[in-house]
Amino acid sequence: MIGFVSLVGAGPGDPDLLTLKAARRLRKADLVLYDALVSQEVLCLAAGAQRVLVGRRARKAGLTQDAVNRLMIRHARGGKHVVRLKAGDPFVLGRGGEEALALWAASVPFEIVPGVTAAVAAPALAGIPVTHRGLASGFAVVSGHAESAYRPILETIKPGSLTLVILMGLLSRQTLAHLLLERGWARETPAAILLAASCRQSSTWIGTLDELAQASVERSSDAPGTIVVGQVVSLASVIGLGLGENSNVEKREASRAGHC
Amino acid sequence: MIGFVSLVGAGPGDPDLLTLKAARRLRKADLVLYDALVSQEVLCLAAGAQRVLVGRRARKAGLTQDAVNRLMIRHARGGKHVVRLKAGDPFVLGRGGEEALALWAASVPFEIVPGVTAAVAAPALAGIPVTHRGLASGFAVVSGHAESAYRPILETIKPGSLTLVILMGLLSRQTLAHLLLERGWARETPAAILLAASCRQSSTWIGTLDELAQASVERSSDAPGTIVVGQVVSLASVIGLGLGENSNVEKREASRAGHC
Repeated sequence: MIGFVSLVGAGPGDPDLLTLKAARRLRKADLVLYDALVSQEVLCLAAGAQRVLVGRRARKAGLTQDAVNRLMIRHARGGKHVVRLKAGDPFVLGRGGEEALALWAASVPFEIVPGVTAAVAAPALAGIPVTHRGLASGFAVVSGHAESAYRPILETIKPGSLTLVILMGLLSRQTLAHLLLERGWARETPAAILLAASCRQSSTWIGTLDELAQASVERSSDAPGTIVVGQVVSLASVIGLGLGENSNVEKREASRAGHC
Repeated sequence: MIGFVSLVGAGPGDPDLLTLKAARRLRKADLVLYDALVSQEVLCLAAGAQRVLVGRRARKAGLTQDAVNRLMIRHARGGKHVVRLKAGDPFVLGRGGEEALALWAASVPFEIVPGVTAAVAAPALAGIPVTHRGLASGFAVVSGHAESAYRPILETIKPGSLTLVILMGLLSRQTLAHLLLERGWARETPAAILLAASCRQSSTWIGTLDELAQASVERSSDAPGTIVVGQVVSLASVIGLGLGENSNVEKREASRAGHC
């Protein structure tokens, strides 16, 4: 009896932002293969499963994509329900497509469980809507990991025409900012860095594109980060303030948070 | 005692794609103000709440934004927990930012509960990853509702440089396709229309940009639709096939689905 693989989005970090389906898959999984950015609190939901870290983090090595594919296939063929757990959504810069193709080629049954992407949720939780009437009618999401990936995209987008969301761009934030300035984005364009969004240790930096290019913005060493560039960032000073004042909802819930 | 407002993303339609937090908010809400695109199955979770349809749908009128804002504020001031329920994510073309600003101006406490956006989930569930190594390192999400909104964005994006996801563009799909062809997108660029994604009545059309411009693509009259344009759409013929063959997971669950 062959098992199957669920390619599951873990959301931005807060287990409360898992989907009902993702939470159920985690509770029933035999094996969870997870990325480094997946939070411990999310993993707690899979207490009954074997859990294996397979992901890479920025400059640190992990298993190769081939090795991850082989692991999924081997265990599914052994009859296990494998959850391949990815931060955010499996298809937003998560190489979920490559894994789905490998599973298909191996005739292993699989499913996709979409998740809340940090590209939208990280700004939202800081009071930044990626779209807002009069400021941005659309947004683009790009990877900041490799210049060969982001340069061709950023070079085509007209300065200020939409909101830019850059994932995995913390280490290259100065290069990214310089590229945008060269392309004609205004120096005073609002910019934000959202660290560990939705998690207890979350922090937000807000400034300008110019400051992003110049300053050595502090960041906690290991937290996932989302960069947002565009006029919508200016709303954080109002919407974010409203969210900050409204701690009653969350305080009531804080006591619910447990540990593995 | 003042109440509060939760701006909640309902996801693409399947209640299983609600977040744990959204589901909890719905169960405890006093009043749910929902958009027309929110599925009945999601609303079922708020069985104990008063539920009021406030949203507009394509050419049909609904309450004005001001009227929705006033409703939220009045009931929160009356001590109620109001859930403002939006299809997908509240900040992805959902005017959630305007509502947050109105709540802040009225000193009504509020929170944002991000959701799974159809921009990512609708393609994913048809086997289309919005990003895929070698095909697209990023994606842009735009509204197809008004030409004044999408034209300035689509005119800046270099043909083929990223995946285009267009929400609320069903009615203007021919205009959109013609604009992209004029801009230099290749006629044979793969394109998809995803209707009622994640819902039982979902359907997928896959063709080329040229066909999107020419053909009168059938669509069910009232279903929400997501348009995707880009090379990643070609993966649906493989990944989507894999998903289609794997019905065992979902069949096991089908019997769980209930009615209000």
